[in-house]
Amino acid sequence: MKITQAHGGGGKLTADLISNIFARHFANEALDQMEDAAVLTLGTPRVALTTDSFVVTPLFFPGGDIGRLAVCGTVNDLLMRGATPRYLTAGFILEEGLDTHTLEDVVISMKKTADEARVSIVAGDTKVVEGHGGLYINTAGVGEMRCSQNISAGNAHPGDVVIISGDLGLHHAAILSARMGIENTIKSDAAPLGEMVGKLLEAGLPVHTLRDITRGGLGTVLYEIAQASGVHIAMDHTVPLTNDMVAGFCDLLGLDPLFMGNEGKMALVLPEDFAKEALALLDASCYASKPRIVARVRESASPLVTLGTRGGGTRIIEPMAGEGLPRIC
Amino acid sequence: MKITQAHGGGGKLTADLISNIFARHFANEALDQMEDAAVLTLGTPRVALTTDSFVVTPLFFPGGDIGRLAVCGTVNDLLMRGATPRYLTAGFILEEGLDTHTLEDVVISMKKTADEARVSIVAGDTKVVEGHGGLYINTAGVGEMRCSQNISAGNAHPGDVVIISGDLGLHHAAILSARMGIENTIKSDAAPLGEMVGKLLEAGLPVHTLRDITRGGLGTVLYEIAQASGVHIAMDHTVPLTNDMVAGFCDLLGLDPLFMGNEGKMALVLPEDFAKEALALLDASCYASKPRIVARVRESASPLVTLGTRGGGTRIIEPMAGEGLPRIC
Repeated sequence: MKITQAHGGGGKLTADLISNIFARHFANEALDQMEDAAVLTLGTPRVALTTDSFVVTPLFFPGGDIGRLAVCGTVNDLLMRGATPRYLTAGFILEEGLDTHTLEDVVISMKKTADEARVSIVAGDTKVVEGHGGLYINTAGVGEMRCSQNISAGNAHPGDVVIISGDLGLHHAAILSARMGIENTIKSDAAPLGEMVGKLLEAGLPVHTLRDITRGGLGTVLYEIAQASGVHIAMDHTVPLTNDMVAGFCDLLGLDPLFMGNEGKMALVLPEDFAKEALALLDASCYASKPRIVARVRESASPLVTLGTRGGGTRIIEPMAGEGLPRIC
Repeated sequence: MKITQAHGGGGKLTADLISNIFARHFANEALDQMEDAAVLTLGTPRVALTTDSFVVTPLFFPGGDIGRLAVCGTVNDLLMRGATPRYLTAGFILEEGLDTHTLEDVVISMKKTADEARVSIVAGDTKVVEGHGGLYINTAGVGEMRCSQNISAGNAHPGDVVIISGDLGLHHAAILSARMGIENTIKSDAAPLGEMVGKLLEAGLPVHTLRDITRGGLGTVLYEIAQASGVHIAMDHTVPLTNDMVAGFCDLLGLDPLFMGNEGKMALVLPEDFAKEALALLDASCYASKPRIVARVRESASPLVTLGTRGGGTRIIEPMAGEGLPRIC
């Protein structure tokens, strides 16, 4: 089988590649957790570790750039495990012909974002390959586990609600607009989620699951949570997933916000009794945009994600199968 | 300024790029150590963190492959700081058209090498880009600082000797032979150095500096140690740096083993009184090949590396200035 763009889309083919090749051969306790970050035993406190590569094109886009993404993506993966991000590494693969001013702009953006996310970039590496002036960045992140709470995709319970921190699809739409030369005011939501997560945990809310909604979109995230927790996640079709501008953009291009990538949005699962307090905390954050309940967790004999339809029917949500938008992050 | 292959060669242009762009903007205490791995404060025990990307072509070569390199390179960087490697992350950037069997062979090699080096790969990521079936790997590594010994490039002292663990240039020559279609029996030395480092430290030897001799070769390593420690490192021109086969290969192609890349060799700096014991310990390792003293550390008003010449003169050794061999690791 030959690798295609679809293998990098974050959907079913990516999942197949991971389970058939990487997870199969690398199998170990920490990796098998299959969470956004591995939790390690390394003395006290416990340490979380994660990695992500960034290949987004264009390198600069409305609302962000590859450097901002490279910091946010890894920081957010640590946060989603309940860890406080502390240290990042940065590995650069530069294509010949890249202008060093471009590189410097990316590096400055990384530094600024690292400050915003309160992490230090402590180790780096540079390699050069043939090409046309492009640039890839890998970041790995180390965080301190902040609490004994088990925040995990496998921890969603019947009676929980799923909250999203804001409008979906902005990063996806911004990248696509930049590539297609479509003029609009949509900006990527690329942002570190530490301030929001900090508020929720400091308030002592019983957070069951946190997931940043990246490649594959909310549909894929909910599918993964349903699988890991063995529950039915029932989406409410009356709740809009995004704002009017992105919704209009989606209508025009036949896109579904449910499967569009984001770089500064998260899904939060916690008992319904605490939803009001969580929504109020999120609403006060500059990184949120109209946080809302989008689904409820129910008991189920087998894992399932459903979406009620306007006609009164029910649609079963599968993870994104196609390729999504290539090189979105 | 445009990026060229020389910026990735590990020599002067790489150093300029690091100091002018990365170190300048990312500056912080841990990064500024400018060692092979950053040492972090994260509770007890102290933790070392490092990263490396691998872009070697061809993906498979006599003596190794990109997967073996990706594990060894990062593990060795941790070891060179006196840390015990514990956990790795692996970020894959795949080019479209890559055969999944090729990918699987690389993954299997990584797993085998990780077992050999006694580390676990605990987090991963995959991205896909356009291209011609190639593959890049980034690994980041976390290690536990094993001892209070300050093993550092800045710790070489007058009265120390520099020992190399074996013949130099094998990896460089193997890659070059594979690319040029030259038939010989030279194999890459790609190997994890943990067994050798473990023996030295368990014996309680007062190790001052450890450096793996990778891109830029021994010449660049010695230059960096001389700079960081403010000493004169005087090389002994009567000691051969490599075996007859590699020496013959070098003569043919006009190469100097002093600046050739390795992936399983290290330079060890310690007081001369302990040299004999260190050499005996190294000699008993399957990863060493005729370990030998190649230089002595002397006091100096300014940092300096010299090599005596056959005619009785002295040559000053500068770090590799050109591009070295592109995509050697």
